[in-house]
Amino acid sequence: MKETESSLLLADYAASQGFKVTMGVAQISTAFIAEYGSGRPIIGIMGEFDALPGLSQKAIASKEELKPGAAGHGCGHNLFGAGSLGAAVAIKELIEAGKLKGTIRFYGTPAEEDVGGKIYMARAGLFNDLDVCLDWHPGYETAASMQSSQAIVSYLFEFTGKSAHAASDPWNGKSALDAAELFSTGINFLREHVKPSVRMHYVYKEAGNVPNVIPDRASVWLWIRDSKRTGVAVVEERVMDIAKGAALMAGVKQEVKLLSGDYELLVNEAGAKLLHSNLQLLDTISYTPAEIEFGQKIMKEAGLEYIGFKAAPKPLEPTRPDPDGGSSDVADVSWVTPEISLFVATTPYRAPWHSWVVVACGGMSIGHKGMLYAAKGLALTMVDLFENEKLRQEIRKEFETRKGKEVWKALLPEGPPPQ
Amino acid sequence: MKETESSLLLADYAASQGFKVTMGVAQISTAFIAEYGSGRPIIGIMGEFDALPGLSQKAIASKEELKPGAAGHGCGHNLFGAGSLGAAVAIKELIEAGKLKGTIRFYGTPAEEDVGGKIYMARAGLFNDLDVCLDWHPGYETAASMQSSQAIVSYLFEFTGKSAHAASDPWNGKSALDAAELFSTGINFLREHVKPSVRMHYVYKEAGNVPNVIPDRASVWLWIRDSKRTGVAVVEERVMDIAKGAALMAGVKQEVKLLSGDYELLVNEAGAKLLHSNLQLLDTISYTPAEIEFGQKIMKEAGLEYIGFKAAPKPLEPTRPDPDGGSSDVADVSWVTPEISLFVATTPYRAPWHSWVVVACGGMSIGHKGMLYAAKGLALTMVDLFENEKLRQEIRKEFETRKGKEVWKALLPEGPPPQ
Amino acid sequence: MKETESSLLLADYAASQGFKVTMGVAQISTAFIAEYGSGRPIIGIMGEFDALPGLSQKAIASKEELKPGAAGHGCGHNLFGAGSLGAAVAIKELIEAGKLKGTIRFYGTPAEEDVGGKIYMARAGLFNDLDVCLDWHPGYETAASMQSSQAIVSYLFEFTGKSAHAASDPWNGKSALDAAELFSTGINFLREHVKPSVRMHYVYKEAGNVPNVIPDRASVWLWIRDSKRTGVAVVEERVMDIAKGAALMAGVKQEVKLLSGDYELLVNEAGAKLLHSNLQLLDTISYTPAEIEFGQKIMKEAGLEYIGFKAAPKPLEPTRPDPDGGSSDVADVSWVTPEISLFVATTPYRAPWHSWVVVACGGMSIGHKGMLYAAKGLALTMVDLFENEKLRQEIRKEFETRKGKEVWKALLPEGPPPQ
Amino acid sequence: MKETESSLLLADYAASQGFKVTMGVAQISTAFIAEYGSGRPIIGIMGEFDALPGLSQKAIASKEELKPGAAGHGCGHNLFGAGSLGAAVAIKELIEAGKLKGTIRFYGTPAEEDVGGKIYMARAGLFNDLDVCLDWHPGYETAASMQSSQAIVSYLFEFTGKSAHAASDPWNGKSALDAAELFSTGINFLREHVKPSVRMHYVYKEAGNVPNVIPDRASVWLWIRDSKRTGVAVVEERVMDIAKGAALMAGVKQEVKLLSGDYELLVNEAGAKLLHSNLQLLDTISYTPAEIEFGQKIMKEAGLEYIGFKAAPKPLEPTRPDPDGGSSDVADVSWVTPEISLFVATTPYRAPWHSWVVVACGGMSIGHKGMLYAAKGLALTMVDLFENEKLRQEIRKEFETRKGKEVWKALLPEGPPPQ
Repeated sequence: MKETESSLLLADYAASQGFKVTMGVAQISTAFIAEYGSGRPIIGIMGEFDALPGLSQKAIASKEELKPGAAGHGCGHNLFGAGSLGAAVAIKELIEAGKLKGTIRFYGTPAEEDVGGKIYMARAGLFNDLDVCLDWHPGYETAASMQSSQAIVSYLFEFTGKSAHAASDPWNGKSALDAAELFSTGINFLREHVKPSVRMHYVYKEAGNVPNVIPDRASVWLWIRDSKRTGVAVVEERVMDIAKGAALMAGVKQEVKLLSGDYELLVNEAGAKLLHSNLQLLDTISYTPAEIEFGQKIMKEAGLEYIGFKAAPKPLEPTRPDPDGGSSDVADVSWVTPEISLFVATTPYRAPWHSWVVVACGGMSIGHKGMLYAAKGLALTMVDLFENEKLRQEIRKEFETRKGKEVWKALLPEGPPPQ
Repeated sequence: MKETESSLLLADYAASQGFKVTMGVAQISTAFIAEYGSGRPIIGIMGEFDALPGLSQKAIASKEELKPGAAGHGCGHNLFGAGSLGAAVAIKELIEAGKLKGTIRFYGTPAEEDVGGKIYMARAGLFNDLDVCLDWHPGYETAASMQSSQAIVSYLFEFTGKSAHAASDPWNGKSALDAAELFSTGINFLREHVKPSVRMHYVYKEAGNVPNVIPDRASVWLWIRDSKRTGVAVVEERVMDIAKGAALMAGVKQEVKLLSGDYELLVNEAGAKLLHSNLQLLDTISYTPAEIEFGQKIMKEAGLEYIGFKAAPKPLEPTRPDPDGGSSDVADVSWVTPEISLFVATTPYRAPWHSWVVVACGGMSIGHKGMLYAAKGLALTMVDLFENEKLRQEIRKEFETRKGKEVWKALLPEGPPPQ
Repeated sequence: MKETESSLLLADYAASQGFKVTMGVAQISTAFIAEYGSGRPIIGIMGEFDALPGLSQKAIASKEELKPGAAGHGCGHNLFGAGSLGAAVAIKELIEAGKLKGTIRFYGTPAEEDVGGKIYMARAGLFNDLDVCLDWHPGYETAASMQSSQAIVSYLFEFTGKSAHAASDPWNGKSALDAAELFSTGINFLREHVKPSVRMHYVYKEAGNVPNVIPDRASVWLWIRDSKRTGVAVVEERVMDIAKGAALMAGVKQEVKLLSGDYELLVNEAGAKLLHSNLQLLDTISYTPAEIEFGQKIMKEAGLEYIGFKAAPKPLEPTRPDPDGGSSDVADVSWVTPEISLFVATTPYRAPWHSWVVVACGGMSIGHKGMLYAAKGLALTMVDLFENEKLRQEIRKEFETRKGKEVWKALLPEGPPPQ
Repeated sequence: MKETESSLLLADYAASQGFKVTMGVAQISTAFIAEYGSGRPIIGIMGEFDALPGLSQKAIASKEELKPGAAGHGCGHNLFGAGSLGAAVAIKELIEAGKLKGTIRFYGTPAEEDVGGKIYMARAGLFNDLDVCLDWHPGYETAASMQSSQAIVSYLFEFTGKSAHAASDPWNGKSALDAAELFSTGINFLREHVKPSVRMHYVYKEAGNVPNVIPDRASVWLWIRDSKRTGVAVVEERVMDIAKGAALMAGVKQEVKLLSGDYELLVNEAGAKLLHSNLQLLDTISYTPAEIEFGQKIMKEAGLEYIGFKAAPKPLEPTRPDPDGGSSDVADVSWVTPEISLFVATTPYRAPWHSWVVVACGGMSIGHKGMLYAAKGLALTMVDLFENEKLRQEIRKEFETRKGKEVWKALLPEGPPPQ
């Protein structure tokens, strides 16, 4: 939630290009909308720009911080934001030139890695009037995505007991830490009794100060995931009982705070096919000997095998019954409007995600080539979407079918995100 | 609860001596009362005769079963019963001879080690009209006891879940075994938060059949002890919550069954002093060279140091604030009528209790000498109690003071003991 | 391991048909081989006949024990044995008539549900000279199987500590039960760190006698499964460390006993296709109104929906990357010789396996029809195998490819199975 | 370890009084020695001056921070230091005046609540040449102490595993947090098997950052206490095995860091009697109506009953077999030289220690009266010690007897205390 500069940079650029910019939407100061044109269709495109803590890294092939202790774009969101905006600007020029009719809308969506800015924006209804929305994400390969993502929910379990001197009268204390530990033990016993697609993982936020004192406060931060929101909900019920049980065991009180949660992503095959067909029109990214050397070196530094680059768009893959482990707030947008997602290689194949390697590649030509490729692919696809109403209808119909009767409800606490 | 023969042997002997015998009191077939004389005072004396499973042992100085797999008197109750009855018969003779006035009543009290026969007899009101009650217990030293015993309660915690195939759909199962394990984990976390005098110990009665099947049944047998009943009650409350918490965690049902429980023993100092003064009138037990050799050999066989015999009565010791670890259903009698307890050495000093060593010594002259000593000491004390009303009043007054306003309530399930 | 009668019945029948019978092979008294003919090819066919404990059931549509407390054929192995032998006898007649050349060999394979009789027989080399082996298994649908089964291993973890009186000196005890509980806690924490295809499940075999005594013995019976033997081996390593860690934590000794283990089944697609094509030649099983009523009633009694019968052979299904949860010692045979497996419906669709429902259906016409169908399907397939060398070569080649360089090693303790 | 100002204030005052001051002894910048006189006897007196974090409090009867978030003298060490130095100055004046012969040495001993400054000073040999050492401690009653304190040891257990994405490949991670939790579970299971006098208590120092990542680092800070160092050592051995076991279970590495540890305090009855007899010569502290009102109000604010003040010296109490729960680095000095300890009431009776109440009282006349009383009592006692060689010999002899053959060894890491 500290991406103020990145946010302003993008918004200013959009404004300079003639977009109408609205800052601070959805009660988030760094969230903004930049719109151009008028009337239907309204095509949206999203750009992230948040970084990951402690991943500051120079754009070189060995690990070295740019600014010690600072954050870095370990998930490649610097490219994401700029690439998407680039595509939006291309469309704007066509509208301006009278070659396309309708509205292009760029979403500056902050805090994907943190509170999930898009969920707040979706809850605020900001995607409701879109015909289609697009996004792209840097990766180690290139594909029009046919894959869903895991539904997830993030809770904070807080236990409140009673302090006592741990040596002189521990029997007068009620240990909140005991409750937290019993809670996590219960979670681990539950693992046998959840579907194999479920993931639960936790850390302790508070776990005592000094051994001398029976801790009267402890808290556990837990994420629950499954292939679908409905699967997560089943586990949630059990987890709530485990928290109550743990509190009962330790004789303490407990409170649960919903922090945020994503649904599973609703794939849109019609949209993915359209995107895929447009990727075929682009030249595959090629790398210079220097870039290849950079890739070899950086993978070696990371202790990994260098397998080369995989920048050519992969064939469309059937949607897997269970998505790979990972969640995204793009998923929540996909419940409000049809979503088309692109992945573009911005690193060597199998580069370790959320690491300094991704930061380094994103800061030099390897990443930049990916960004330009993404911008082109998205722009071409948007042109089709603006021009072809039948395509839009097909996409919408699939969206409605997949959504079915389930009602999306933002998994968020009330009010704006915590600062 | 299988001491039918021992029970009949003692009852028959009492009847043959002219006692009026009532078998099967308190809904226990092996519990009986043998009474002689009439009117007040009524002095009671208790005799146990139950054995411990798997302790069959010949009366020799090395470990050898008398009857393989059978029970043995590892707590010396064979001596206890016969010794007490001997004392009762001595009093009967004095009443018969017109030298004492009143009633002598022998209690054949079964199942001390098991369900606690005396608690059932006390609940049935069988001790209510006594002036004083006496008992003795074999030990490795001799003393008029000034010590209390731990209050205890025994519960069975039963968990009922839902079976499922552990490989194909464990997510459809609710594991009762998980609940049992979480329960015991909760108990172990509780240990930090109970007074140092508390003891909790458990075993699993049911813990699954085959790994293939998520267990739908599991149970934990738990004993809770503390220096006083009130202390046990504090812990009980926490333990009940832990059971509920564990069931909640595992998504199963739970039930708690009270099996039995003893209060702490109410010491009677006036009574102990009287007993102690009478022990001074007896010759201290002396051992023959053969007995000493037997003692040396048996302690060596048991892997222990032979320190000799300590048969001389110990000085009266002040009551310790917390009794040593151990409980007895004599304690429940002590809440209904003043109780005087004698310990007499029937083994070498520091012999391991509840072991074959105690069985072996109890079956030969070392044990028999102790039994006779006990019979004499108790008989002398009873003579005083019959003759001296002031003494009885003093004992009664102390009893009332120590009991205070607390109301004794048998810690038993309804109905007769389980067969 | 108590299937003596079933074993003799089958062996006697085989002998009466002219088979050469060898009883008590592989050090198992109920395991036998019945052979007819001479020379190559040698085609094997397996028959199980063991039952499941506590599943005695009459052949009626509501739950009623045939012989209270006795075992029942809850996995349908009564049909399995007789059906396979029927097919073998059919082949024998063709050899006898000179219409086929070679050897037919029936394997009486006991104890699939228990120690895994086929693993012992495979270790003894009894399948080594086969060209192909066949088996069938009752089910709730009919299919030439293309599916693997889970690899599994069964261990007993034994902990040995030191007893002490749980109230008077628990600090002198080393609790084997603590170790067992800490072991299982470790297993539950490990669940997060194994592949989703892994299954681990356990029960306690020994978990203390009386609360009074710190348990000096405790044991946990654990099964580990994964899609492949190599996956199980990865988990085994971790589990062994957990056992060592638990023993270290509780200050006790531990020992691990391998009880038995299966590999994953090596599918043979060429064999499955052959079998499948032969099933097309058979009339699909049809059910009488009475049988349908029986099916409806028995499913209702079992609290399940009646969906009908699915006796028509299913289309060949591609092998799933991870098999369903379940293991079989047929799998071990499939590592020694190419294996072809048939499932035939002997119950209504979705009947609960390992239950009285399966026992009841297996005892009446529904089951018998399935058995005859299986016998025919297997016999037809064997005729092809005897006649068509090219087919045998193709099957063998696929077998060699799938096995690769991995060496099968019976997962068994040394010596004969425990009685 | 931030008591720089307090340290300098005391040292400067001592220097201004003519003491020879040595700053920064024992590699601790705030530790100092202030000495006056020469030759034997050498009598030491200790002054603490460290505060407790987060206890800043004005000298008023309701809770209000003096400096928000700052530390406060919740254990009354501000009084301790000044009181002791006052007594030392009194002795110095008598030496200066030629009325006493020998050396008075004041020890400025920092960080009692933290790393245990006196242990460092004792390890540096700074108490070796003393004849006797004295100290006093503020309390809620006044007594020449006859009580020991618990031996203690403080360890940091660090676990190092391997990170992985908790949703996409948790099976590639080795969770250090799992190890920490299993360690603490092992500790809780151990509680049954330690003597009732043992205390173990812990907090987590590191317990994961974000749920997304399998934690590769976790640590537990554990204190172990018992009535004697030898008892702690027995438990330490078990705890080390539990840490190893936990690491083995989670597949991670572990390291143990000794932070510090105290022995039990060696009581010196001869010294205590001398001190007690001198207290009889002083006027008991009396309180003004305003002070009494302050006491009433502050106890009420703290939610406690006001029972009055107990400033009159208590009769000498026999040393309890097990000290109350609590430890002190004074204890380590008592193994190097005979130690005489005084407690003086500086708060109302039963004021909650380590709380703002103690800080408030210590900052106004109630605390100051206690400090002056302590200074007088210690000074009178030191006069006797200087004058009476026989007394010193008696004290020394008792010291040698109690210490016996046990060798004191500072429980500290090598080198200076961590900053």
